[in-house]
Amino acid sequence: MQTNEKVQNAESASVSLVSGMHFAGEIDDFRIDIDGEKEEGGGGDGPQPLRLLLLGLAGCTAMDVISILRKKRQEVAGFEVEVHGRRVSEHPRVYESIEILYRVRGSSVESRAVERAIELSENRYCPVIAMVDESVEIVSRYQIEPDD
Amino acid sequence: MQTNEKVQNAESASVSLVSGMHFAGEIDDFRIDIDGEKEEGGGGDGPQPLRLLLLGLAGCTAMDVISILRKKRQEVAGFEVEVHGRRVSEHPRVYESIEILYRVRGSSVESRAVERAIELSENRYCPVIAMVDESVEIVSRYQIEPDD
Repeated sequence: MQTNEKVQNAESASVSLVSGMHFAGEIDDFRIDIDGEKEEGGGGDGPQPLRLLLLGLAGCTAMDVISILRKKRQEVAGFEVEVHGRRVSEHPRVYESIEILYRVRGSSVESRAVERAIELSENRYCPVIAMVDESVEIVSRYQIEPDD
Repeated sequence: MQTNEKVQNAESASVSLVSGMHFAGEIDDFRIDIDGEKEEGGGGDGPQPLRLLLLGLAGCTAMDVISILRKKRQEVAGFEVEVHGRRVSEHPRVYESIEILYRVRGSSVESRAVERAIELSENRYCPVIAMVDESVEIVSRYQIEPDD
């Protein structure tokens, strides 16, 4: 069957209705519950699913950047990525812009290395960014903070 | 400051490095850990972040469809959405196609209502689909199963 062949090498995720707008989500063996916004009948049992796109984007670029910084032998003591998305008010209420803030902590981290790592992730490696950047404006910035 | 204004009405998510490729993710008060694939140095502490896009897509269209079916007074006893994505092998390794399977359980659920609900979600309401469908081929199908 065509469908089964297609699905064989695929990556999967699923959601199963619990009640109201609360769904049990699964990715392999990991369970991640999701729920609607309160104004859409959500009961606070999980994040709203569109936010998972932001979290996926943050995680995907974070993994690229930390990998590249490690290859460049940068001593990273701490690393965070924050993502903020602004939605349009008309359906389908997509993000019109997404801002990414990279926060690298370390006493001797070089700004050139961070800039290059971010550039490589955003323009070459991060599939989430690559899939949405035709329709969403993405801006990013970074901070290097001393390790204390 | 321009940035703070922009961020004020934004939706947010963040990740913070734990160790290796393991990051603690946060969406509001919800914590969702993510980790790399095993071949990329992941230790199995969470799903790979790109999968969150699939889960977000599943959740977002699932909420649309169940809302519409309820408005159409369909008696839904169970509802699941499975999503399968196939990635290209070249960087940035985007999904080239995503297959969505809607599984509705209920003795008197009308196929026309399900078709219309799916069509409305995919073409009008679901922001995840709207953001990726310029670059990803999306195909969907549904099953209605008797309630037992």
